[in-house]
Amino acid sequence: MDAVKPKIALIGGTGDLGTGLAMRWVAAGYPVIVGSRDARRAEQAAARLDPSVGAPAPRGLDNAAAAAAAEIVVLTVPFASHEAVLAEIRDAVAGKIVIDATVPLVPPKVARVQLPPDDSAAVAAQKILGPGARVVSAFHNVGALKLQKDGPIDCDVLVFGDKPEDREVAIRLAEAAGLRALHAGPLANSTAAEALTSVLIGINSRYKVDGAGIRISGIPVT
Amino acid sequence: MDAVKPKIALIGGTGDLGTGLAMRWVAAGYPVIVGSRDARRAEQAAARLDPSVGAPAPRGLDNAAAAAAAEIVVLTVPFASHEAVLAEIRDAVAGKIVIDATVPLVPPKVARVQLPPDDSAAVAAQKILGPGARVVSAFHNVGALKLQKDGPIDCDVLVFGDKPEDREVAIRLAEAAGLRALHAGPLANSTAAEALTSVLIGINSRYKVDGAGIRISGIPVT
Repeated sequence: MDAVKPKIALIGGTGDLGTGLAMRWVAAGYPVIVGSRDARRAEQAAARLDPSVGAPAPRGLDNAAAAAAAEIVVLTVPFASHEAVLAEIRDAVAGKIVIDATVPLVPPKVARVQLPPDDSAAVAAQKILGPGARVVSAFHNVGALKLQKDGPIDCDVLVFGDKPEDREVAIRLAEAAGLRALHAGPLANSTAAEALTSVLIGINSRYKVDGAGIRISGIPVT
Repeated sequence: MDAVKPKIALIGGTGDLGTGLAMRWVAAGYPVIVGSRDARRAEQAAARLDPSVGAPAPRGLDNAAAAAAAEIVVLTVPFASHEAVLAEIRDAVAGKIVIDATVPLVPPKVARVQLPPDDSAAVAAQKILGPGARVVSAFHNVGALKLQKDGPIDCDVLVFGDKPEDREVAIRLAEAAGLRALHAGPLANSTAAEALTSVLIGINSRYKVDGAGIRISGIPVT
C-alpha cells in the first residue's frame, strides 16, 4: 500500500466530512474519487479539490460507480441515508475495505446518545454489506471543518474492526490525513466512538467551543 | 457544599476504585464512609485510610448503613453485583445524589463493548432506584491505581446526569480528587464513557501501557 497508493472512494463525499478527508488525501497524493447520489454534484465537488503534484486528478461519480472504481471505500453519509447508501454500494464492495465514518445522530437531539438497533452504525453496515465486505469504522470524532483547514488536528482517531490488518489500513489513511489513529478493538466497540460524538456535540454547546475532540492519554505519541 | 463538606459514602468502597477515591477525598478533607457487604471489611478498609488533618476519621459500615449515613452516595461495584447492591441501598438514597461509576464489563471479554439491556449501567441504576434518587454517572475511565497514588492524573472525567446541578456536585468532587471533569450531557449519554472503558482496556493491552485514559481536546483547561 505504501508503494502504490490505493484509489479511495468517498461515498457521500460532497458533504463536510467527505470534503475534508478528500482534501487531505488528495494533498497526500492519493487518487480520490468523490461519490454522490448525483454524479454531476460529485463531478463538481471533485473539480473543486486542488490536485497535488503528481496525484491523479480527483474524479466524481455516482456512489455505486465510485465504490466500484475504488480499492478502498469510505462512507461519509448522514445516518438517515446510511442504509439506503449501503444498499447502493453493496455489490461493488465485495472483498474491499469499507471504512464507515457514520455516526448515528438522530436530529433534533444530536447531543443525546440514541443508539441504533444494532448498537452501532458500523455493525449495521457489516450486516447489510454481508461478510464479503471488510468493514472498519473510524473518523467519528474529528471535526469536518478542521480537516478542511491545513495543519495538525488535536484529536485522535479510534479505529474499530474485527481484523487488525484491516484496521491497519484505516490507521495509515488517518495518518496520511495528518491524524494520530489507534487500534480500538472489534467492530462492536464502535459504539464507544459513535456515542462519544453526541457527547462532544453537547460539550461544544455547553462550553461554547466549536472543536471539542478526544485524545487518548497514557500512550506514547507516535 | 463548599462551606461544610458533605459526607460521602463509597458503596463497594473496599475495591480498587473505591479505595482510590476514598484516599483522595479523605486527603481533601471530606468525611468518608466506606461501605461493603461485610461491615468488618469496611471498617478495616476505613482504618487503612490516612485521615487528613481536620477531617473526621473515615468510618466503615455495611452498604445500606453507609448509604443511609451519607449525603452523597458513590457506587464503585463490579457490574456483576450492580443490581443487587442497588437493591440494598435503594431505601437509603431517596432524595440523595448517587454517583454511579459502574462500568458494564462482562468477563472474560472485558475489552469488548457489551452493552447491558438499558444500554448503560447508569440508566439501569436510575430505573432500579426510582425517580427519587438523583443518579449521575462519572469516573468510568480513570484508573483506580492512579487514584491511589499522589499527583495529577492525565484523564478527564465525563459526568452524565439529567440535571446540570446534580452533575455539578459530581464535577466538584472530581475536582476535589484532582481531576478535570466536564458536563457530558444526560444520563443516557453515559453509554459513551461506559463503552469507552472497554476500548481503553483493549488499548492498554495492544499498546502495552497500563494507564490509557481520555482527554477532551479543544476546550480551555480549567
